[in-house]
Amino acid sequence: MPDVLAYATADASCQFHRTTITRREPGPTEVYFEVRYAGICHSDIHTARGEWGPVAYPLVPGHELAGVVTRVGADVTAFAVGDRVGVGCFVDSCRACEQCRAGHEQFCTSRDAPTVWTYASVGRDGLPTAGGYSQGITVEQDYVCHIPDALPFEKSAPLLCAGVTLYSPLKRWGAGPGKRVAIIGMGGLGHVGVQLAAKMGAEVIVISQTMAKREDGLRFGASDYYALSDPERLGQLRGTLDLMVSTVSATIDLDRLLRLLKPGGVLVDVGLPEHASTLRLSSLTGGNKVLAGSQIGGIAETQEMLDFCAEHGVAPQVEIITGEDITAAYDKVVRSQVRYRYVIDTSTF
Amino acid sequence: MPDVLAYATADASCQFHRTTITRREPGPTEVYFEVRYAGICHSDIHTARGEWGPVAYPLVPGHELAGVVTRVGADVTAFAVGDRVGVGCFVDSCRACEQCRAGHEQFCTSRDAPTVWTYASVGRDGLPTAGGYSQGITVEQDYVCHIPDALPFEKSAPLLCAGVTLYSPLKRWGAGPGKRVAIIGMGGLGHVGVQLAAKMGAEVIVISQTMAKREDGLRFGASDYYALSDPERLGQLRGTLDLMVSTVSATIDLDRLLRLLKPGGVLVDVGLPEHASTLRLSSLTGGNKVLAGSQIGGIAETQEMLDFCAEHGVAPQVEIITGEDITAAYDKVVRSQVRYRYVIDTSTF
Repeated sequence: MPDVLAYATADASCQFHRTTITRREPGPTEVYFEVRYAGICHSDIHTARGEWGPVAYPLVPGHELAGVVTRVGADVTAFAVGDRVGVGCFVDSCRACEQCRAGHEQFCTSRDAPTVWTYASVGRDGLPTAGGYSQGITVEQDYVCHIPDALPFEKSAPLLCAGVTLYSPLKRWGAGPGKRVAIIGMGGLGHVGVQLAAKMGAEVIVISQTMAKREDGLRFGASDYYALSDPERLGQLRGTLDLMVSTVSATIDLDRLLRLLKPGGVLVDVGLPEHASTLRLSSLTGGNKVLAGSQIGGIAETQEMLDFCAEHGVAPQVEIITGEDITAAYDKVVRSQVRYRYVIDTSTF
Repeated sequence: MPDVLAYATADASCQFHRTTITRREPGPTEVYFEVRYAGICHSDIHTARGEWGPVAYPLVPGHELAGVVTRVGADVTAFAVGDRVGVGCFVDSCRACEQCRAGHEQFCTSRDAPTVWTYASVGRDGLPTAGGYSQGITVEQDYVCHIPDALPFEKSAPLLCAGVTLYSPLKRWGAGPGKRVAIIGMGGLGHVGVQLAAKMGAEVIVISQTMAKREDGLRFGASDYYALSDPERLGQLRGTLDLMVSTVSATIDLDRLLRLLKPGGVLVDVGLPEHASTLRLSSLTGGNKVLAGSQIGGIAETQEMLDFCAEHGVAPQVEIITGEDITAAYDKVVRSQVRYRYVIDTSTF
């Protein structure tokens, strides 16, 4: 049973401390890999602070894991020792329900063997799951992705959540040549979305709170940049957009944003605002418009996204931090002070 | 210049009186047809009462017209004298913009020649348009549909709005074999939607305010019937529906309804509630769900719908009324006392 160093919080205050956790020996179809890098996602913070409901402590968060395989079970065929691999938000599901069979394992509808989240969940072994802020993890091979050689290792970790969270709706809703796509909010999610949409061939526009990150936005591939704080200029976009993806976790004015879409246009939310929004349904009927939600992606789609990023040079802009930096990093993420994703180097534990 | 009898209201009180209006001689590409039947749509009432903004009076409403061609312009190729024809919510558009070319003439984006609505609009001749509560109308041939022989004449009128309003979202969002579709609200729109979805091959469920119209719902093709007033039983549908179409004009609890959808499911609103709704975006993200709007349909789609209804025996259940009945009928529609659509017989004028 491998014991590994990890960083955990004892309660919702999110003061992280170094600790040791035990991982299981890989079963016949499991791989064990050394976690090298782990991204910090805003949803780690919501979860660890108990803002999305009660969780069990001590808690080791982290669902953006990149590492190197060091042991494989006897029946593992897809991975070998030395492979660079990644794991995202979940590590198991039933594999039999309609959703699993359709590649949407994150929406597994099984009652007996539902989706097992990478942390703050209960594994098939009946034990609480612990996430990526650790030096190693054991995972079923079907829930592990290959990290292509062309992807910088430390930048690949955030793709496992932030990357697929943007890739999935952009692909589903047709971002590509001839389409005008707006990314709303340019933080950890948005700055990857701008790159992805641009590499998919779309014309990309950023709509941010202010113009502060305009230069970054253009560098990531946007052709123009608008601020919610300048409604008059924003209004010039009225009726011109095919697709918008909102990464904003604050409550947004849906009716105002929907006016920027062409007839038939789509606004996708991935930002999960805490509070309810108001919406005039006439904002949708007038123009056959669509308001959709999107939550991460399945395993096959995550692999496809990693391959796309490797081929097109898409990579998050990251700040590498140590285990001791995690506590302070949480506050900075909430204050939008990170450019653009913190990644924990687990060799510092 | 044909003078025709019509029923008009002089103001927002909607006391209808008989009057005479003048239609233009059909131009080279226009047809003139005698209106035989005209449906009363709830949106006629909203418009005539000024509830959707100011309108010019006297007003002749009506955007569900069925009639017989009696004159054609010199260059008309698609219609001949004696043809049974129908007209819906609009009678012209630019034909050149992206939306018109895609067959969505109702969303024409032209500034110079936008969509001309069948009434309460301004025609290309600069005159106010007058609708179907009249004995004749002149319309550009490209905005006229053929009514198939198999459709009962008096029942075909409501299809021009109510029919396509349901057909378009059911088709776009995949109602068909293997799909579970709920129609929310079973009035003038909903009772056509139940028939259409059933004939498309879907399993159809009605969700109504109460169980009062259950027998009708089953007769129209539904396999089961639920009431919003019985939340416990309604909750049995949780996670089981592929598609829901809401025809309800009252504000609905979107979060509650979205829970009834499977992951990937779609809730389409065609009911246009007057007031804003509240919505938790997490109701959409958790399961990649979709909230969409849909507004009538284009000309080609309307013809396709009429042909579908003729082939599959879909027809609204109507109550035939006289011109003098219109005033009282408006109140009955608002009180949901019509079963299920009033159709004016213009020979009674």
